[in-house]
Amino acid sequence: MPKLTLDPDRYFDPDPTQRPMARELYETVADLPLVCPHGHVDPRLFVDETATFGTPADLFIIPDHYVFRVLYSQGIPVEAMGVPRLDGGLVEEDHRKIWQIFADNFYLFRGTPSGAWLTQELSEVFGVDEKLNGETAPAIYDHIVAKLASPEFRPRALYEKFNIEVLCTTDEAVDPLKSHQAIRDSGWPGNIRPTFRPDAVVNLLTPGWRKNIDALSNASGITVNSYAAFVRALENRREYFKSMGATATDHAAISAYTAELSPSEAEAIFERALRGEVTRDDAHRFTGHMIMENARMALEDGLVMQFHVGAVRNHNRVIFNRFGPDKGGDIPEHSEFTHNLRPLLNKYGNNPSLTFIVFTLDETTYARELAPLAGHYPAMRLGPPWWFYDSVSGMSRYFDQVMETAGLYNTVGFNDDTRAFASIPARHDVWRRASANWIAGLVVRGLIDMEDAREMVVDAAYRLAKRAYKLE
Amino acid sequence: MPKLTLDPDRYFDPDPTQRPMARELYETVADLPLVCPHGHVDPRLFVDETATFGTPADLFIIPDHYVFRVLYSQGIPVEAMGVPRLDGGLVEEDHRKIWQIFADNFYLFRGTPSGAWLTQELSEVFGVDEKLNGETAPAIYDHIVAKLASPEFRPRALYEKFNIEVLCTTDEAVDPLKSHQAIRDSGWPGNIRPTFRPDAVVNLLTPGWRKNIDALSNASGITVNSYAAFVRALENRREYFKSMGATATDHAAISAYTAELSPSEAEAIFERALRGEVTRDDAHRFTGHMIMENARMALEDGLVMQFHVGAVRNHNRVIFNRFGPDKGGDIPEHSEFTHNLRPLLNKYGNNPSLTFIVFTLDETTYARELAPLAGHYPAMRLGPPWWFYDSVSGMSRYFDQVMETAGLYNTVGFNDDTRAFASIPARHDVWRRASANWIAGLVVRGLIDMEDAREMVVDAAYRLAKRAYKLE
Amino acid sequence: MPKLTLDPDRYFDPDPTQRPMARELYETVADLPLVCPHGHVDPRLFVDETATFGTPADLFIIPDHYVFRVLYSQGIPVEAMGVPRLDGGLVEEDHRKIWQIFADNFYLFRGTPSGAWLTQELSEVFGVDEKLNGETAPAIYDHIVAKLASPEFRPRALYEKFNIEVLCTTDEAVDPLKSHQAIRDSGWPGNIRPTFRPDAVVNLLTPGWRKNIDALSNASGITVNSYAAFVRALENRREYFKSMGATATDHAAISAYTAELSPSEAEAIFERALRGEVTRDDAHRFTGHMIMENARMALEDGLVMQFHVGAVRNHNRVIFNRFGPDKGGDIPEHSEFTHNLRPLLNKYGNNPSLTFIVFTLDETTYARELAPLAGHYPAMRLGPPWWFYDSVSGMSRYFDQVMETAGLYNTVGFNDDTRAFASIPARHDVWRRASANWIAGLVVRGLIDMEDAREMVVDAAYRLAKRAYKLE
Repeated sequence: MPKLTLDPDRYFDPDPTQRPMARELYETVADLPLVCPHGHVDPRLFVDETATFGTPADLFIIPDHYVFRVLYSQGIPVEAMGVPRLDGGLVEEDHRKIWQIFADNFYLFRGTPSGAWLTQELSEVFGVDEKLNGETAPAIYDHIVAKLASPEFRPRALYEKFNIEVLCTTDEAVDPLKSHQAIRDSGWPGNIRPTFRPDAVVNLLTPGWRKNIDALSNASGITVNSYAAFVRALENRREYFKSMGATATDHAAISAYTAELSPSEAEAIFERALRGEVTRDDAHRFTGHMIMENARMALEDGLVMQFHVGAVRNHNRVIFNRFGPDKGGDIPEHSEFTHNLRPLLNKYGNNPSLTFIVFTLDETTYARELAPLAGHYPAMRLGPPWWFYDSVSGMSRYFDQVMETAGLYNTVGFNDDTRAFASIPARHDVWRRASANWIAGLVVRGLIDMEDAREMVVDAAYRLAKRAYKLE
Repeated sequence: MPKLTLDPDRYFDPDPTQRPMARELYETVADLPLVCPHGHVDPRLFVDETATFGTPADLFIIPDHYVFRVLYSQGIPVEAMGVPRLDGGLVEEDHRKIWQIFADNFYLFRGTPSGAWLTQELSEVFGVDEKLNGETAPAIYDHIVAKLASPEFRPRALYEKFNIEVLCTTDEAVDPLKSHQAIRDSGWPGNIRPTFRPDAVVNLLTPGWRKNIDALSNASGITVNSYAAFVRALENRREYFKSMGATATDHAAISAYTAELSPSEAEAIFERALRGEVTRDDAHRFTGHMIMENARMALEDGLVMQFHVGAVRNHNRVIFNRFGPDKGGDIPEHSEFTHNLRPLLNKYGNNPSLTFIVFTLDETTYARELAPLAGHYPAMRLGPPWWFYDSVSGMSRYFDQVMETAGLYNTVGFNDDTRAFASIPARHDVWRRASANWIAGLVVRGLIDMEDAREMVVDAAYRLAKRAYKLE
Repeated sequence: MPKLTLDPDRYFDPDPTQRPMARELYETVADLPLVCPHGHVDPRLFVDETATFGTPADLFIIPDHYVFRVLYSQGIPVEAMGVPRLDGGLVEEDHRKIWQIFADNFYLFRGTPSGAWLTQELSEVFGVDEKLNGETAPAIYDHIVAKLASPEFRPRALYEKFNIEVLCTTDEAVDPLKSHQAIRDSGWPGNIRPTFRPDAVVNLLTPGWRKNIDALSNASGITVNSYAAFVRALENRREYFKSMGATATDHAAISAYTAELSPSEAEAIFERALRGEVTRDDAHRFTGHMIMENARMALEDGLVMQFHVGAVRNHNRVIFNRFGPDKGGDIPEHSEFTHNLRPLLNKYGNNPSLTFIVFTLDETTYARELAPLAGHYPAMRLGPPWWFYDSVSGMSRYFDQVMETAGLYNTVGFNDDTRAFASIPARHDVWRRASANWIAGLVVRGLIDMEDAREMVVDAAYRLAKRAYKLE
């Protein structure tokens, strides 16, 4: 059987001068605690000390669209991977069979970031020492099942083993944060914090928006029957999230469009929405306005503001209708920031008290728009490579295209941005190795000296994220 | 005289660890047969055993706009390179003089892919051992003339020497495929296959479209006097091409726009076109519709579908009016796939029986749109770097920006896409070396092991193209 | 104290094969004279032999928006850097304090091109041997003050020490070029030439446009009361600039739009502008027309034409209103050349007597549009990496994305494009090292041989700029 081994110098440039320097820099940050300021881990995992991860298929395949989209792209039905159908139709229920299909096709992950994370998880977290393939699948399945049954592999235990310093979840504006409250009440010292994400009440075209507004009324105790009440309800919820430990909000939109509406326009659109008469243009303008409005709130309550731009959600309606959102069918589109962010940055961007972190799925904006903007406006910072670009080559392009113009100190370190809890150490490890390698590349090219390099590698791995997200 | 030598390690990274690994991987594929699923070689070359290539200028310069555009860009008239004028005006007829100008200016090709191919052709195919320049031009001309006069340098002989396993040509929908029939009748075992390219009848703005429709009626035996008849005629011709060995169709458009028209809209537009009253918008919508319609046909008859997007043809009207199309004056424009392909992919993209291969001239779509689409939809595959990007650096950007997200197995290996038959081995050699180097780079960075690498290099060089184009 | 040392192999790839070859090539060009065909140095520096640079803050910080934008982006007020306010409001006047802030925050420049230039200036021009930081700031300030007081550090002396062969300034169309005349009259042999930049009279939306037209009347002696007179006045000023040594003109626009107006349309728009009734669309169309018209003039008078596209000027209105233009608040936007340049290139681009040099801030156009255009049209050349991309990584992307398709000989070497005179040698040094490294990379990858490399490195460092700008 081919052995599964992790290269101790993985992701480093092979150059005989650069590699040892990258390794030396990496070793100074490899064991630093993990700061996880943005992600999608379910907080329920940490409520109960005895919670478990289920089967290997539950852990690695069924909930992770990064993984099953790769198999789907080669013609393997989503049902065969055990992903539940909205209509309750039959899907594979035998998790050993799901695992076997995954293993038979594991070669599809060659050279992909999911392949790298999965390999590291199998090896480092679960101690698997054979390569996963059709033959080794059953034994590895049994091996992981045995591990998952032990107390050391429960979520809280892994949180501690992973040396996580803080883990921020992403939560709807109307979420009562009961899991977060329960974690606090439990006395467990893990640092799990919510993040305020109001998209489902801000985006007027969200399916079920009217129900979401009712939920917002309930959650805030403010009857949301007008735009003014809507704003007060949001302010109320932001305050609640803050009281529960949140330091940040998160906002997503297809376009980076920002522009302030007059109060009467905002009110008129909101009332049309309440009447169910909103247009696509209304929704677009309202979102652009609410981004501005949340920046104003952020200046007032001090929450850090994240803005994720460019995903065309549910591109594949067949998959969406059958399985729902977040099933691998989101596709980026081209983005524009120079003109779209101009209203927001002109109004709030000169204020260093605001922290406005922008994420893109359009790498062409790195050097052309985002680095020049982040390299000028005091409020603006650039988020790490997002989603498809959270990878060795994606990071390399980011360092190459962003850093000369923005400077390292207008970026915010790393976000793992994952719902796959067990992949968190592997994801941070890729970033820490890739950034150590980038910094070593600057040293061997005479652009910086080792004194600077030693500071930068800690900034990239740990300090920048903590500072930007006010987690200090 | 400076000697002409080919570096046996050319195109490999110089790194002392990566280079020997790249060489080791390359050597496993260097001698595999060449699979050429898409190109523009004239099938007449293979009809007659005694066909020849003409003079060195006929072979290397006059028909190859990749070559003469470089000289034209520096002010050398197209006429001086012997390219015939549409008006029959005087052009250089002394092929020795053309060769001399080419050689005098051969330094312009330094660092270009054409320079690399030409150098390899001169050295490996023709055994030239001096660098081409003004001084060596006459002797090298004589040397090549002598070679071309020998039976070993006839097209069929070179086809065999080049170890070509299959060569697909590109042919108009109305083409009777007489050359292909003649090759079959000749008993020669070369595997030359046609490809169905209906652009000239599908694009309603094609100069001479009405005549092309008449030709389609003749070729299909179906009187194309309605949209319904048009579709039947296309189906008929696809069937004929298939009977003549075709496994694929090819479609080109400026935009990737796809959207289905209602039958009555399609009929109305087609009838306007028959009456010569078609508008630009009609043509745009009809092309977008016919891409959908050809996908439907592909699902029925099993032909693989290629889609080439983004070339603004005949940008330079002066050159077009004087010399016609394909004279180096085609320029790419920006492309959009996420929204444009959504109708087609939603209707047909979930069906793994369809193979829909997309080519782009806009590299910004690699990581942002094409890799995520190919990495999700079962029907979609991504074609290799096309035209200007069929080069060492172009391939490097493709591997870098495509592979992490799409995965190697949603790509289709290499297309040489050339009308310059003698350059085919050089072009495949660049790809095989560049892909071996990329794969070696993954190994030395610990992303894959050598077991995976050995499979991937054969997939990239040979198996993926064969499988995707159903040439197995 | 940490020592400040320059790596003699800086910016070269660390590879043990490539690096010595890059060094060998670089050494052949390191001491060639500097050709500076485009920049923004103030010619007044050279009028008077006794002119000086002021304090270290005057030299390095206050006039250089590349530098102070980086500090501003981290929340340091522009006032604290001594940049004068338009309203005469208080700004820091103690240049030692400004220097101290700069030094305290010098770590922000880690890995940036400004950091590299500043380090080289401190080390090579001023002989500073300690790293700049908060502690070393006062002593380094004193050290530079002492240097600047000596005759060897006056502008003319540095011009000679820097081995500048020719330095072209950028001058308004209405500029009487008195400094240039005074330099000529002084008998000093320095080669300082003006460049004709008519944007402030061509762009009808320029603040103060009407006054500029009056100034144009005065300067040309032609009463500019009609479009026809406007054209004659421009021709007159071009002739004057030419008589004063100019070899080139420069034109900037947000968009690359070119399209000819009919004489009556041009006249009508110009008259609306004279009446103060111009619209945004008028201005856009007039600029596109005047680019065409200047190309016509260039063919007549032989001046080389530069076109800088894509900067959204004064994006940050707060900074613009307080401090004026050129304060770090210019941000690029996406650009389009294929369609926009088509009218100009179709009319004038086939004429090799025209030299039309295009600069972009949108790197996505390098491989997709600009390299194919420059690689076809005889008149078109591609300018070097501009502004944010005048950096080690920016150059690497330029070589990677431009050269295979355009070929080196359709590019024009290097422009330092700076107002920071003392940074000129450092900027050329980055280019010479980066291009030597790129060329060495071609050699070690077997794409060219050393004979070609030795020619190319001199072309890139010296000959191409001289030839393209007719400075031979």
